[in-house]
Amino acid sequence: MATLDEVLARIDANQEAALKRLFSLLEIRSISADPAYKDDCEKAARWLETELSSLGFSASVRETAGHPMVVAHAKAQRRDVPHILFYGHYDVQPADPLDLWESDPFAPRLVQGEQGQRIVARGAADDKGQLMTFVEACRAFIETGGLPCDVTLLFEGEEECGSPSLPAFLAQHKPDLVADLAMLCDTNMWDRDTPMITTMLRGLALEEVIITGATRDLHSGLFGGAAVNPIHILGKIIADLRDDTGRITLPGFYDGVEELPDEIAQQWRALGLDERSFLGDVGLALPAGEAGRSVLEMIWSRPTCDVNGIIGGYTGAGSKTVLPSRASAKFSFRLVGAQDPEAVLESFRSFVRARLPADCAVEFIRHGASPALTLPFASELLSRARRALQQEWGKEPVLGGSGGSIPIVGDFKRSLGMDALMIGFGLDDDKIHSPNEKYELKSFKKGARSWARVLSALSG
Amino acid sequence: MATLDEVLARIDANQEAALKRLFSLLEIRSISADPAYKDDCEKAARWLETELSSLGFSASVRETAGHPMVVAHAKAQRRDVPHILFYGHYDVQPADPLDLWESDPFAPRLVQGEQGQRIVARGAADDKGQLMTFVEACRAFIETGGLPCDVTLLFEGEEECGSPSLPAFLAQHKPDLVADLAMLCDTNMWDRDTPMITTMLRGLALEEVIITGATRDLHSGLFGGAAVNPIHILGKIIADLRDDTGRITLPGFYDGVEELPDEIAQQWRALGLDERSFLGDVGLALPAGEAGRSVLEMIWSRPTCDVNGIIGGYTGAGSKTVLPSRASAKFSFRLVGAQDPEAVLESFRSFVRARLPADCAVEFIRHGASPALTLPFASELLSRARRALQQEWGKEPVLGGSGGSIPIVGDFKRSLGMDALMIGFGLDDDKIHSPNEKYELKSFKKGARSWARVLSALSG
Repeated sequence: MATLDEVLARIDANQEAALKRLFSLLEIRSISADPAYKDDCEKAARWLETELSSLGFSASVRETAGHPMVVAHAKAQRRDVPHILFYGHYDVQPADPLDLWESDPFAPRLVQGEQGQRIVARGAADDKGQLMTFVEACRAFIETGGLPCDVTLLFEGEEECGSPSLPAFLAQHKPDLVADLAMLCDTNMWDRDTPMITTMLRGLALEEVIITGATRDLHSGLFGGAAVNPIHILGKIIADLRDDTGRITLPGFYDGVEELPDEIAQQWRALGLDERSFLGDVGLALPAGEAGRSVLEMIWSRPTCDVNGIIGGYTGAGSKTVLPSRASAKFSFRLVGAQDPEAVLESFRSFVRARLPADCAVEFIRHGASPALTLPFASELLSRARRALQQEWGKEPVLGGSGGSIPIVGDFKRSLGMDALMIGFGLDDDKIHSPNEKYELKSFKKGARSWARVLSALSG
Repeated sequence: MATLDEVLARIDANQEAALKRLFSLLEIRSISADPAYKDDCEKAARWLETELSSLGFSASVRETAGHPMVVAHAKAQRRDVPHILFYGHYDVQPADPLDLWESDPFAPRLVQGEQGQRIVARGAADDKGQLMTFVEACRAFIETGGLPCDVTLLFEGEEECGSPSLPAFLAQHKPDLVADLAMLCDTNMWDRDTPMITTMLRGLALEEVIITGATRDLHSGLFGGAAVNPIHILGKIIADLRDDTGRITLPGFYDGVEELPDEIAQQWRALGLDERSFLGDVGLALPAGEAGRSVLEMIWSRPTCDVNGIIGGYTGAGSKTVLPSRASAKFSFRLVGAQDPEAVLESFRSFVRARLPADCAVEFIRHGASPALTLPFASELLSRARRALQQEWGKEPVLGGSGGSIPIVGDFKRSLGMDALMIGFGLDDDKIHSPNEKYELKSFKKGARSWARVLSALSG
């Protein structure tokens, strides 16, 4: 078996051919949302199957009710090495508005950017460029003697339209897909020089509240002052949920929320995020969360309570002197650590009921609940991945979080019992889902090298 | 000039003919909202013109952009008597749903009710029956020697569709309409045995608040916890506007709000309103206003702050993890006594601004402001009217309020500088605007007698 240096040298030597391969994948208009591109999605799946088969993977295109999956397996040279399931997606977002593109979104090209060359095309970063970094790492291993880990690849073609076929596919093909660890690549670096491993995904609990007072809408002149107004009740609930320091007042809400280990807290502080600039991008200036917490904590490691929608009474133009019979609001809680979504929702319902006048009724509609997903900071696999990335980039990778959920990670955890290691080489300015999407050539090249180092490190 | 007793006897003797006259007015389908009945509205106006002319009024039908007005004048026998402007409307609500009527809504008939006979027809109570009580009182005076006051009658044909032509008509015909006192008849008795004079109409100030945070809707995962949520700000404003006792916390809000005179407060207490039943009719049980206040105070003599509508974020089915860029609510304040609508709105805007984070914006949209209208309890004209009603009904009339506004009263005050005396003989169960509208025969007969007594009393 070759040394890691030989593998890395192979990646470097393959660079031009790798780019050509990526370009031919980028040329395929695999827009999953638009039925007009159904054949293109099939074509992209076939392209991957052919590519992986040529590398010696046992690869196949698997039909689903929607666009097909590509599943491929290859064994390591050695036995008793970890088995990795790598996930990516070959489908892309629609390219419109086309007139905002500086060139054909499906005619990939290299463009000189301010800090090096970049690959411009729909899907360059999301996710074809990212997934090919892993494939190229596998290629280099295979061409120099063999893979260091058992590898299963799973590429889906419906990620951009909500992965409707994926959960059932995982459940049905569990024996074919289960591995020691899942790896995902559609995340970003901290910045262009600093890699990041996403170790925390916040959970989410959603509950709609509908409050009913009178049996019908009332005239605010005839009843105003005497009849209860459900909008006022909602207002009080919303206000009471937060104290003056921004802390959520729901009893037991912070059970299972732990402070960051000192090492991580220190790392986040050292990142020196420009909070004004982060919020300034969307026209804001003041962090709105818990007093004394940094913005990174607010969006990565602290739980939230938000109202995502509210409606009641007359909402058209002008005015109407109505006391509405009912009003409703959609509440959501982003969860972290070991917070129990069911306990949070139960506490929330009690909180609402405690503020409900005896002559009003409340209906709760559940819109889902999933816990946070955290890769333990002390995990040995994580330590190995950190060292590997540090060696490639010369900088300690950020152990970051994601404030939003990545459903596939929850699916892997629930369906296949696997933790996920999320490493990606995208940048925040890659314009995914927008015109002129790009992927840095440096990301593509060092991404493949990074995966080679990570796979090598994981194999022990 | 005849004695009051002779006039009352005349009313009694005219009773059968009076009912015939009312029925012929009720047969006219003067539905103002439906253009198909334009000629019927014209016909009702002409009917009134003819009727009043035959009594010796100088009566005329006056065209407007909509349905015509009827204006009629008659002088008293004596000079130096008060000049009264009596207002009513000859138009009626549409009669549908027709299948819920027990008989043709425009074929008036007498029906035996639980407590006496009733006139059943569309417009029986609202407002043809009520306005004819006044006309019949005038007839009895004229037939027995002459009116005790100068009388101007103003009957409009667009009350049921918002009186669009009225304000301009008042302004244009001010010299022809101005009098010492306006009288209105489309109010109710306290109950079937107790007359009521409505002396207080609450004012109304309306202001919409639109709060904007981020420049665009945000993903609640990526920004949740760090970015401000305009719905939360609205929630806090709504909650802060009221303390735990239901008192409105707006600075200066209660300036101009006076306690009821002891006599009135005692009268209201003695009425023994069944608060549970009042609220029970609309499915409620608990008065929602200021602690320690009766329901009558809450709806008649105390000011309110209500949210008539609220909207923000995602309000469709299911859930969407969005932090909305903006949220808005329509606030209204019912005003009493000498509360200044402009001062209330100014205080409200300051209250909102004080709760607005520095990086958010607020837009206010004004939807109107009008002060409360109160007939001074100490007014001599009011005292005379009270005595007159007491003599007819054998019970002290309730000096009541109306929680809603009656726009015409404000128009009389603003355009013509006149206070209004509101006396009507409708009952809460008259089903105005609904199928099987009725007017108690007792209301019709004693209503005319009441007006005779009031006119006589006002003339001194």
